Amino acid sequence: MTRTKATEDPARLPLVGDRHVDPHSYPDGIAFLDGQYLPMSQAKVSVLDWGFLHSDATYDTVHVWDGRFFRLDLHLDRFFGGLEKLRMTIPFDREGVAEILHNCVALSGHRAAYVEMLCTRGASPTFSRDPRQAINRFMAFAVQFGSVANAEQLRRGLHVAISDKVRIPPASIDPAIKNYHWLDLVRGLYDAYDRDAETALILDFNGNVAEGPGFNVFCVKDGRLSTPAIGVLPGITRRTVFDLCGEEGLTAEAADISVAALKAADEVFITSTAGGIMPVTRIDGAAIADGKVGPVTSRLMALYWRKHDHPAWSSPVKYP
Amino acid sequence: MTRTKATEDPARLPLVGDRHVDPHSYPDGIAFLDGQYLPMSQAKVSVLDWGFLHSDATYDTVHVWDGRFFRLDLHLDRFFGGLEKLRMTIPFDREGVAEILHNCVALSGHRAAYVEMLCTRGASPTFSRDPRQAINRFMAFAVQFGSVANAEQLRRGLHVAISDKVRIPPASIDPAIKNYHWLDLVRGLYDAYDRDAETALILDFNGNVAEGPGFNVFCVKDGRLSTPAIGVLPGITRRTVFDLCGEEGLTAEAADISVAALKAADEVFITSTAGGIMPVTRIDGAAIADGKVGPVTSRLMALYWRKHDHPAWSSPVKYP
Repeated sequence: MTRTKATEDPARLPLVGDRHVDPHSYPDGIAFLDGQYLPMSQAKVSVLDWGFLHSDATYDTVHVWDGRFFRLDLHLDRFFGGLEKLRMTIPFDREGVAEILHNCVALSGHRAAYVEMLCTRGASPTFSRDPRQAINRFMAFAVQFGSVANAEQLRRGLHVAISDKVRIPPASIDPAIKNYHWLDLVRGLYDAYDRDAETALILDFNGNVAEGPGFNVFCVKDGRLSTPAIGVLPGITRRTVFDLCGEEGLTAEAADISVAALKAADEVFITSTAGGIMPVTRIDGAAIADGKVGPVTSRLMALYWRKHDHPAWSSPVKYP
Repeated sequence: MTRTKATEDPARLPLVGDRHVDPHSYPDGIAFLDGQYLPMSQAKVSVLDWGFLHSDATYDTVHVWDGRFFRLDLHLDRFFGGLEKLRMTIPFDREGVAEILHNCVALSGHRAAYVEMLCTRGASPTFSRDPRQAINRFMAFAVQFGSVANAEQLRRGLHVAISDKVRIPPASIDPAIKNYHWLDLVRGLYDAYDRDAETALILDFNGNVAEGPGFNVFCVKDGRLSTPAIGVLPGITRRTVFDLCGEEGLTAEAADISVAALKAADEVFITSTAGGIMPVTRIDGAAIADGKVGPVTSRLMALYWRKHDHPAWSSPVKYP
């Protein structure tokens, strides 16, 4: 170790403060933790929480559009399923979590919100390394709605690059447990930026297309839709596309999709709670078909947003 | 969503606090963040930091034993290597980080300490999803030294189970970037607990032995040492075993190790900054050889601890 003046003279050790002075800014929103509703600036996790040190956590995100939650029940199903698989317990049932999410949104005032519920392993009072001794910690927050694609990208379609990074396989992490293990996706994103694309798709272990950072992918060929079957998050928006196809008499299936098949598709789109159904018009610098947003994609996008005030698909926030 | 009384009557929405009242306890120690030295209770990460939401972070841990850092230079090498691979930048060079780590330990007063340096992607001031716009955040902390194995386990050897969970492969996450992607290891640990073992080993993608939660594994057969070659963290304690073997004229190699070969070994031990060299005497309920800590393991354990006051391998903390 290189010695410095401070270490040569112990008397010159820096002072220890009582309380962190936080120089960062935070978006408007409301968080819930430890029984308290707080501004986003207060929504923090200890560095000693295994949810940070081991990414030992699960979560789900639901969105609010025009003052209504969209398909909240499906997100609650997935969140409670993840908790069970990770053997985590929280002191709230589904109704309790739904009430907390509602309160976060109502208190935030956001009419369009990105709403997250999460549970970390926590830490044990004795700081044992045994996760069974940790007290699991539930948190939730509501911030302004955000989208993978901006307004221009939604109009003309996203430009995507396919990275050779491989999505963490199900033998390592069960993708049905929604998790924060994203370094493969983040590195894929940097690969895409290096190739002047706007976002990335990465591969499954057989070299087929898997998913991108926060989204599933679909292609349309000869009027039939398909989306990768294995090793991908079972996205709620992905499922919503299947539901919409059922209503519209369109054929959709989960299957292996090769890189070549994706590039040869008539239409490509991605799906995410953060933006819904979003068109892709270029992959690896080449246009998909004529390079324009296709008719099936446009039709599904319109249907998707139309469902947002349907009482079977959405539920109202009661703002103060 | 199930409506509750609180949501039926907006006037009954809960109050929003100004500041989080933290009911949790924290271990004694000192953290550095945002230019401030603080008690561990103040060492927190925003839930909106990509280091939490995407586990987009790298770190390293070094230990202090009897008031001296052990092989700090190697840990700094690996940390700065990880930063470069993740395209993160911090406002400190090696000497600057070394000084911060030193100060955390000296201010904590711990003579035996577990010292972590970490960098998260951070967040962008506009909360863009583009990680290139995020401001990376460096933190460090020193808490009391902890070990994978307790005193009894060090004496009689750990009891390990081999889980069928597969360590996240290098095609997904480069293991040379020390990272918090641990859910595979955590789930392996629960598999081990279910089988009355104390810790776990998980597999590589070919079904060979990979590593455990926070440690590498070695076996000794006919006087020769081997440790898994691929898909494992290049641990500093693992490397130290190779260095000690070189000094002692022992043969050690990195190679594929099947589950059968591990169980048929003369001796098995694990290596971690959190505990050093630690014997394993039972795997999946069966004894390794005669079920006692073996002579090569004991010899390496003694040598390992003896190096802790050697000036070429360690450097002093100057306590106030």
